[in-house]
Amino acid sequence: MAIERIAILGTGLIGASAGMALRSRSFAGVIAGWDPKRNEVETALRMGAVGEIATDPVTLAKASDVVVLAGPVLTMLEWLERLAPELGPHQLVTDVGSVKGALCAQAAGGYNGPEQAGFLPGHPMAGKELGGAANASANLFEGAVWLFTEPEGAAERSAQAAALAVEWRAWVAKLGCRVLDTDPVRHDVLCAWISHLPQMVSTALSALLEDQFEADADLLPIGGRALKEMTRLGSSPYSMWRDIALTNTDAIAHSLLALEQRLAHIRENLKTPELREEFARANEFRLGNSPKKS
Amino acid sequence: MAIERIAILGTGLIGASAGMALRSRSFAGVIAGWDPKRNEVETALRMGAVGEIATDPVTLAKASDVVVLAGPVLTMLEWLERLAPELGPHQLVTDVGSVKGALCAQAAGGYNGPEQAGFLPGHPMAGKELGGAANASANLFEGAVWLFTEPEGAAERSAQAAALAVEWRAWVAKLGCRVLDTDPVRHDVLCAWISHLPQMVSTALSALLEDQFEADADLLPIGGRALKEMTRLGSSPYSMWRDIALTNTDAIAHSLLALEQRLAHIRENLKTPELREEFARANEFRLGNSPKKS
Repeated sequence: MAIERIAILGTGLIGASAGMALRSRSFAGVIAGWDPKRNEVETALRMGAVGEIATDPVTLAKASDVVVLAGPVLTMLEWLERLAPELGPHQLVTDVGSVKGALCAQAAGGYNGPEQAGFLPGHPMAGKELGGAANASANLFEGAVWLFTEPEGAAERSAQAAALAVEWRAWVAKLGCRVLDTDPVRHDVLCAWISHLPQMVSTALSALLEDQFEADADLLPIGGRALKEMTRLGSSPYSMWRDIALTNTDAIAHSLLALEQRLAHIRENLKTPELREEFARANEFRLGNSPKKS
Repeated sequence: MAIERIAILGTGLIGASAGMALRSRSFAGVIAGWDPKRNEVETALRMGAVGEIATDPVTLAKASDVVVLAGPVLTMLEWLERLAPELGPHQLVTDVGSVKGALCAQAAGGYNGPEQAGFLPGHPMAGKELGGAANASANLFEGAVWLFTEPEGAAERSAQAAALAVEWRAWVAKLGCRVLDTDPVRHDVLCAWISHLPQMVSTALSALLEDQFEADADLLPIGGRALKEMTRLGSSPYSMWRDIALTNTDAIAHSLLALEQRLAHIRENLKTPELREEFARANEFRLGNSPKKS
């Protein structure tokens, strides 16, 4: 196999979990890590996510077969730009970012040419409401879907880079993931609906309840499981979501507006049979008993 | 102890769970059940939630020390009215309804007088997204809060009814619940925020996603834990929520409108520092690190 050295740039929750997961599935090569925060990469080393700590990300990337970008989206845009002239066709860059359109646009021209490094955009649909290497887990990706969004022109990449991409996909499957392919635009719209919207809703609900009841620390235990679940993502730090909001703005705004309208519709129909229809639609989503599905 | 015969009117999820929980905590008296749906009460009998099945709810109630009302709110309003002239000061009616204002208003005049049965309104903050005796569990209330909303005039109730109320509260504590008291109006506003609003949000989100993606049955697994949690309550049937929407309409509408405005605020600030403030407020709700709380 061609992947002997993997570099993880950004050893937070996802980057460190990827390292731990690779190791636990018997990846025998070198995994080296770098993070702008020294304590994050030291934690990753302590947890066995990386076996080596690098002091310079470019030097590290140049010495690696596969470079895994695992930082915030805007940071990864910078890394992509900075690494493009440094890497060659015997190398593959992949990432774990939550927004793919901006990354694919940045990579266009600088990657996937016959003389360039390959770029395979990826997105594991897994995470936690708290980031950082200390929360990483070798099983974070078990049972999750790992989306890939091959950019236009990916077929032009070198044979070596193409082989690395195939091998990386195989590793993702070994981590316990189901691999699905889509295109960057569809990915970003899909994730706005099923990931970014739920996050914003949980943040909005949590912030609203904090404003209403801040003196009452007992609210979460009184509300029970439902309230805990609906506000769990309210713990997510802004730092994990800022770049997503900045780079997938239109799709998120569109989904938010649609939900606002849906809530208004429910509010106006609390006493009418329309409410029954809303519950029936919701039941179909969860229970899959829509006649249109069969 | 004075409670020797308990009647459960409505042996669905909550009623049957109450019976199973009482039995598992060694309640040694008789628990008899009645339900308008024969199969529900037969399931409750099979699961050990009730030891006897009654054919007439009024006859059953008249022969009991404590009558536990565990049906939809509008049904319980009817039962309260129908039972008032049939019961006496040696008896206590309690309930498990999610809305307390309407029930307390109905009970006023017909209960808690020196010659009348007592009425102790209660609300266990526990449930599941699917109802019915088949989903009942002896541990449903373990760790939950059980709210009581003593109505005005409760102090006038007979000594016997007062003693039964004390004993019922002790049983609730034995079920593993934390007992809290509030008044009916505050209860209904609180539950609109922490229970009814989260339900409507989950229903709206699920219904919206069903409309957007109904052809794509794979959405739930792709979205992962966050999407599953945020839409779990979308499985809740209309039948469990209709009466709540009908009897706590104003408070639910008020909380829905506030959330719509909060979502619009986020939507308009996806690229501004205001988004950081929203995440910070949400973090405070979940993590309790508000300076105002300390």
